[in-house]
Amino acid sequence: MHKQTIQTSTIQYDVVVGKGLLSNIDQYLPKKYNNILIVVDEVVKGIYGDTVIDTLKSAENVAVTSVPAGESSKSIEQYYRLLSEAIEHHLDRKSLIIAFGGGMVGDLAGFVASTYMRGIDFIQVPTTILAHDSSVGGKVAINHPKGKNLIGSFYPPVAVIYDVDTLQSLPAKEIRSGYAEVVKHGLISDQAFFEEVLNVDLTTPLDTEVTVDQLQKGIGVKAKIVEQDERESNIRKFLNFGHTLGHAIESELGYGKITHGEAVAIGMLFALKLSEEKFNTRMPYKALYDWLSKNQYPLSISWPGINQLIDKMKLDKKSENSIVQMVLLEEIGKPSVVNLSDHELRAHLEKFIRELD
Amino acid sequence: MHKQTIQTSTIQYDVVVGKGLLSNIDQYLPKKYNNILIVVDEVVKGIYGDTVIDTLKSAENVAVTSVPAGESSKSIEQYYRLLSEAIEHHLDRKSLIIAFGGGMVGDLAGFVASTYMRGIDFIQVPTTILAHDSSVGGKVAINHPKGKNLIGSFYPPVAVIYDVDTLQSLPAKEIRSGYAEVVKHGLISDQAFFEEVLNVDLTTPLDTEVTVDQLQKGIGVKAKIVEQDERESNIRKFLNFGHTLGHAIESELGYGKITHGEAVAIGMLFALKLSEEKFNTRMPYKALYDWLSKNQYPLSISWPGINQLIDKMKLDKKSENSIVQMVLLEEIGKPSVVNLSDHELRAHLEKFIRELD
Repeated sequence: MHKQTIQTSTIQYDVVVGKGLLSNIDQYLPKKYNNILIVVDEVVKGIYGDTVIDTLKSAENVAVTSVPAGESSKSIEQYYRLLSEAIEHHLDRKSLIIAFGGGMVGDLAGFVASTYMRGIDFIQVPTTILAHDSSVGGKVAINHPKGKNLIGSFYPPVAVIYDVDTLQSLPAKEIRSGYAEVVKHGLISDQAFFEEVLNVDLTTPLDTEVTVDQLQKGIGVKAKIVEQDERESNIRKFLNFGHTLGHAIESELGYGKITHGEAVAIGMLFALKLSEEKFNTRMPYKALYDWLSKNQYPLSISWPGINQLIDKMKLDKKSENSIVQMVLLEEIGKPSVVNLSDHELRAHLEKFIRELD
Repeated sequence: MHKQTIQTSTIQYDVVVGKGLLSNIDQYLPKKYNNILIVVDEVVKGIYGDTVIDTLKSAENVAVTSVPAGESSKSIEQYYRLLSEAIEHHLDRKSLIIAFGGGMVGDLAGFVASTYMRGIDFIQVPTTILAHDSSVGGKVAINHPKGKNLIGSFYPPVAVIYDVDTLQSLPAKEIRSGYAEVVKHGLISDQAFFEEVLNVDLTTPLDTEVTVDQLQKGIGVKAKIVEQDERESNIRKFLNFGHTLGHAIESELGYGKITHGEAVAIGMLFALKLSEEKFNTRMPYKALYDWLSKNQYPLSISWPGINQLIDKMKLDKKSENSIVQMVLLEEIGKPSVVNLSDHELRAHLEKFIRELD
C-alpha cells in the first residue's frame, strides 16, 4: 500500500493506492462520520458494490444511490437528483459523500458534495486509472450541452482510495483512456518517465507492480503542480496538455463515442506537431503515434467540422477573450501556454487531420 | 461614502456604502473586466436598470439578464438558465458577474459565479438593507423545495457597492425585513447598539445619516465574526440568531407570504423567550415585541403545524444528527449554541405560539 499526501490551501489529504483496499475501506476513512451517502455507477455497483457497502455498513449509517454509467450522467438533472437524495437521507454538515466508480462519478458526486449545504466532506474511491488521476487535485464538475466541465468547483476530497485490484475488471478502452494521462505526465515532466511509459504494452495483462509505480509517478507530477497552483491561475494549465483539442473532439463526437483519454491522445499528437512548428524543435511525434497505434488507440476518427472544433476550443476554460490557448512543449518536460489565432489554428488543424488520416 | 474592508481566507474586498454610487458604478469596480454579465431582478431593472447599465456600457462589454423578483427565483431552473446565459455571452474566467438587486439576486447570481467555470469574480450591488447585509460574508445559495439555501457555496464577492439612495424606493416591508438583521446584530453584540436600533421609527422616512451609521455598525459586527469563521464551523453560527425558527416559518408559509426579516423577527422573539428559560435570565422580550409591533411587523401569523416546523428546523444547516441547534443569548452580546430535544422544542414552541397570539 502506497500513500502520498497532497497539500491544498485548506486541507491536506492522502492518496492511498494498493491491493485489497475495497474490502477494508472502513479503515481508510480519515474519521468517523454520522452518515454516509455512497454514489456509485451502476456497472461498478454490480461488480464491487456489495463488498464496499457491506464493509461500511458494519460500522456506519450508510445509504447508496447509483447513477447510470457514462459521461451523460454528469448532467444538471443527476446533480439535482443527488442533492435531493442527500436531503432525503438526512445528510448534514458532518456527513460524508463517497464517490465510488469512474471519473464521471467522482466529478458528479464531488460537485454535489461541494455545494450540499455549502460543502461537506467527500472521498474519492476511483475504480479506473483515469478516475484515480482526476480524483487528485480537487476539480469537480458537471457538463453543459455547450461544453465539458463548465459547471463546477475547486473542492478537494478528504481522501482518495484506489484499489488496483479493480484493474482486473477494467475494459481495454478504459485502460487506454487512463494511460493517456500517464503518457501526458511523462511528456510534461521528464523524458525518462515518458520513455518508460512507452515501454508498457497495454494489449497484454498489466504488471500490477509496474502500473502502480507509474501511476504513483504520474500522481507525483500532478501533485507537485496542483499544490503550487490549486485554482489553475498559471502552471496548472500544463495538465491540460492534449486536452484543448481532446475535449473538443470528445464533445463534438458525443460523449461515449470516444473515451476521454483516447481523445486526449489525439490532442497530444496535435500538440506535439504544433510544438515542433512553434518552437522549431523535434518532438517524439512518431514514437507516440506508433505506441498509440500499437496499443489500439483509435487514431482514424470521423472528424467533426473544423468550425465546430474551433468553437468548442474557444469554450475551453483556459480561453480568454475568445482566443484559444493551448499547452505546447518547448521540449519534453518544459510545457508552455501559447495563444493561437483562429486562422493559425485552422491551418494547423487542417494539416494535422490530413496527415493523420 | 464609507468603506470597510473584509478579509477572507482567499481575498479581501471592500464594502462601499454611500449616496449616488449607482451612476458612478464603473469607478468602484476593483479592476477592468473583459466581459460583464449583470443579473438584475425585474423590479430593480425597471427603476435603476438604465442608470447602471448605461454607466457600465460606456466602459465595458456588458450583457444584462433579468430574473423575476421574489425568493422563488432562487431555483435550480433559474440557476441553470443563468449559467447558460453566461456561456451564451462568452463569459470566461476573467469575466465578471454583477448581482444587482435584493438578497435573492445576490444569492442566486453569486452561486452562478461560484460554479461557472469553477468560479469567476462577482460583485454585489444590493438595493435593499437585507441584501446589503447578506452580501457580506460570502454565502451564496439557491433553495430546494425541502429547505432554504440547501444548495450553495462559500464564495466571497470581489466588492460590495451599496447605494443608499435606493432606500427611497424600498417598500415598508423590505425596510422592516432588513432592519430585523440590524436588530439581530445589536442583540448578539452590544446592549447600547441594540437600544439605539430600538430608537428608530420605521414608520416615518428614514434619516439616511442614522441608517448608514447603523448599517455600518451592523456590518462591522458581522465582518468581525465572518473573518474569524468564514465557513461557519463555530462562531459564525451566532449570525443565525432568530433564523432557525425564522427559516422554518418562511419556508412553511411559502416564500413571499412573509419577508425573511419578518420571519426572523418572530424567530428572535422565540429565541429570547427560550434564552430566559435556558439561562434563567431576563431578556428584552417586551421591548423587542413592542418595537416590532409599533413598526408593523406581522406578529399574528397563520401558524403552520408544529410537526412541520420542527421537521424544517431539523433541516437547518446547523442541525447535526437530526438534533435542532438554536442560537440563544446568555446575555445581550453573549450568544451561545444550544441543542434542543424534539420534546423540549415542541413544548416551548407551543407555549410561545399560544402567548404570542
